[in-house]
Amino acid sequence: TWMPTYKPDSEFSMANFPLGIVSHSDEPRERVATILGEEVIDLRILTTALDVSTLKRLFPGLGITVARLCATFSESTLNEYAELGRHVHRIVRKGLQDLFRIDTPFPEILRDNSNLQKECIFHQTQVRMLVPMQIGDYTDFYAGYHHAYHVGVMFRGPDNALQPNYTHLPVGYHGRASSIVVSGTPIKRPIGQILVDQEKKQPVTEPTRKLDFEVELGAFITKPNKMGEPVSIEDAQDYIFGYVLLNDWSARDIQSWEYVPLGPFNGKNFASTISPWVVMADALEPFRTTPIENKTEIQKYLRETQKKSVYDIELEVDITTAEGETTTIGRTNSKFLMWSFPQMIAHHTLNGCPLRSGDLLGSGTISGPGGADERGSLLEMSEGGKRNISLNGGDLRTFLKDGDTVTLRGVCGTTEAGKVGFGQCEGRIRGAVKWSSN
Amino acid sequence: TWMPTYKPDSEFSMANFPLGIVSHSDEPRERVATILGEEVIDLRILTTALDVSTLKRLFPGLGITVARLCATFSESTLNEYAELGRHVHRIVRKGLQDLFRIDTPFPEILRDNSNLQKECIFHQTQVRMLVPMQIGDYTDFYAGYHHAYHVGVMFRGPDNALQPNYTHLPVGYHGRASSIVVSGTPIKRPIGQILVDQEKKQPVTEPTRKLDFEVELGAFITKPNKMGEPVSIEDAQDYIFGYVLLNDWSARDIQSWEYVPLGPFNGKNFASTISPWVVMADALEPFRTTPIENKTEIQKYLRETQKKSVYDIELEVDITTAEGETTTIGRTNSKFLMWSFPQMIAHHTLNGCPLRSGDLLGSGTISGPGGADERGSLLEMSEGGKRNISLNGGDLRTFLKDGDTVTLRGVCGTTEAGKVGFGQCEGRIRGAVKWSSN
Ligand SMILES: [Ca+2]
Ligand SMILES: [Ca+2]
Ligand SMILES: [Mg+2]
Ligand SMILES: [Mg+2]
Ligand code: NI
Repeated sequence: TWMPTYKPDSEFSMANFPLGIVSHSDEPRERVATILGEEVIDLRILTTALDVSTLKRLFPGLGITVARLCATFSESTLNEYAELGRHVHRIVRKGLQDLFRIDTPFPEILRDNSNLQKECIFHQTQVRMLVPMQIGDYTDFYAGYHHAYHVGVMFRGPDNALQPNYTHLPVGYHGRASSIVVSGTPIKRPIGQILVDQEKKQPVTEPTRKLDFEVELGAFITKPNKMGEPVSIEDAQDYIFGYVLLNDWSARDIQSWEYVPLGPFNGKNFASTISPWVVMADALEPFRTTPIENKTEIQKYLRETQKKSVYDIELEVDITTAEGETTTIGRTNSKFLMWSFPQMIAHHTLNGCPLRSGDLLGSGTISGPGGADERGSLLEMSEGGKRNISLNGGDLRTFLKDGDTVTLRGVCGTTEAGKVGFGQCEGRIRGAVKWSSN
Repeated sequence: TWMPTYKPDSEFSMANFPLGIVSHSDEPRERVATILGEEVIDLRILTTALDVSTLKRLFPGLGITVARLCATFSESTLNEYAELGRHVHRIVRKGLQDLFRIDTPFPEILRDNSNLQKECIFHQTQVRMLVPMQIGDYTDFYAGYHHAYHVGVMFRGPDNALQPNYTHLPVGYHGRASSIVVSGTPIKRPIGQILVDQEKKQPVTEPTRKLDFEVELGAFITKPNKMGEPVSIEDAQDYIFGYVLLNDWSARDIQSWEYVPLGPFNGKNFASTISPWVVMADALEPFRTTPIENKTEIQKYLRETQKKSVYDIELEVDITTAEGETTTIGRTNSKFLMWSFPQMIAHHTLNGCPLRSGDLLGSGTISGPGGADERGSLLEMSEGGKRNISLNGGDLRTFLKDGDTVTLRGVCGTTEAGKVGFGQCEGRIRGAVKWSSN
């Protein structure tokens, strides 16, 4: 790229071009942007400055007018852009790659136009990132096999670790859309009912003592299916717009008391944090790999011809203490799933359930096959609070303390070919609100 | 009322004035309306025809401008109106009652103005009703004590019928917002994974054989709470805009195979039907009564000073066969709840979970204490499919057949004082889509 500040190992390389919603002090209204290295490109300002014939050269073969495309860049969410479909998304990403190449075929548009550069390019520290899509419904799956197994062993022993349905269908449940926040939003420690004394059977109402994170990959839906009409596994890929990192914060003590028989509720719905940049599905294509083997004969609607159905994304989770000491406590990979996102979509819609543009699907917690440092939650790392995790600086943790910051990262690819990463998905724990117990 | 077509036993009496979203052929754009007897009053047309001083006389003491009020009547959902708050809702309902009284203090506005009557009043058969609110999140509770007990006995026997948490907190889970439809929308029989042969442990993929309804009361949220800030039980009433009937369609065979450990998913998310008219919380005030006694010492945040915390609404459910034979198969009452909606709200937000205007809370299935004809679901009436239910015309049912129409009704009050009812909440079962099994 000709971008002067670009560093070759950036996760926002020429192979990436994720999209997000930003605002900046020049023009506080939200709009669509992309990022290259450390520089955020305001696509509203960029495309507004170009005439129709230039836009047609930059984005050839859209199948829609450039006016319609450009209108979506002025929206305050990516939903309208997503609904244009994957064909348009491919052309736009290719156009951006062409525009920023050192040997760009369009030098006059931006490379040699320092005025327009000044207008539409902002350093990432100058912009505010927002939740990128209007999320109608959020569904969280449980496709991380090692997580499901580890947690199952803890609660039911190794012989009954997985429920009989686990290898037959991608288990999922409905999450809470209203409490999905963007990276950087502080997370208040939730109050809840907790059964502290398992003997007494009388709960107390207190701030959670078992606040946890969950390392997940999230997928945003591109376009709606009609109510009553299932999406086939072969078509499901077209319903995926892109991916984000997802920290599905969980209060384990609230969850364990409430969740029988209808599933998690207050133990989950206080907050979920996502990374701000949506990595386009096409950017992850080179990183396809095979999922965890499922030896069960699965139902026809879940069988994929694409065997490389998951992505090889290295995931990391850090805890930074209030004193500023950072420790990478877990390393895992998004390939450790037993179910792919197309399988989740085929299952979710098998009964005709309508998905909408902007719906978010979570993978479920992703843990690796190895020891505590490959797990995607403190519940697993600490074996339910029984084992301490050592942090740099000498602190110990079983669950999160007030003042802790949890940061997820996810990157694939090499410096040579261009890294494709998600940026940070981060949240800091604040103390609980004042509460009056019994 | 001076309304000539009004019949005194109408459930849309002068004591009601529910609100809904309608469109009609004259002006197809959605707008806010109310109903009196059989006549729908288009509040956009009505208020647009009046000048500011007239509107101020009709709706005195709003605390906002009449322009701001009237703008909400042109919206395609009730969300903006709901956010104006219960003080405004009270004044508007009172103004409508004054306007339609036989001895109205404002005869010139409408009673003696047949031109305006012709413009703004439509017979109910002339309008199309829409989902009245934009529903950000839908939460379904499980507060119907007799339902929870009956179902628990079926699955776990009488000694363990209720989970230990049941009397300590209003158990709830997240439902699917995208598949909430308005009364009259056909319901396609869902396909799903079903464990037909419990021995073989190998599921099949087929249309549900156990399609069921659930008789519920739904509450819409008026205004948002800030993320991280619980709503106290004393304030919770101010967060309730109004009520609808809710049929939470359920596929029992899909549900029983999928729901462990994370709760119902495809067994529920294919459709939920609501009645179109939102009965204002104030209209139900005269019908307060006490809930089912809870002998457990509950947590402080759930304790109400208002002891009459539920409503005495007679609920009925009919099945109409494809041949047109109608049978009222169940009669129950919305007072058969162990948890009130304010308790549900206090619990839902205890952890800081943000509610938004338009969110829908379901009560959970409401069954009476008596026999099969007091239950709110076929699962209970047929004891899981073991007992036949006799219909007029000689048909038998355990679960629903294609072509069946399920109709819920809910009414309170007397003809003398004016009935307050919900109208119908109805849906007809269509055959499943073509599917290819294994
Ligand atoms: Ca999760
Ligand atoms: Ca229900
Ligand atoms: Mg969450
Ligand atoms: Mg439902
Ligand atoms: Ni709007």
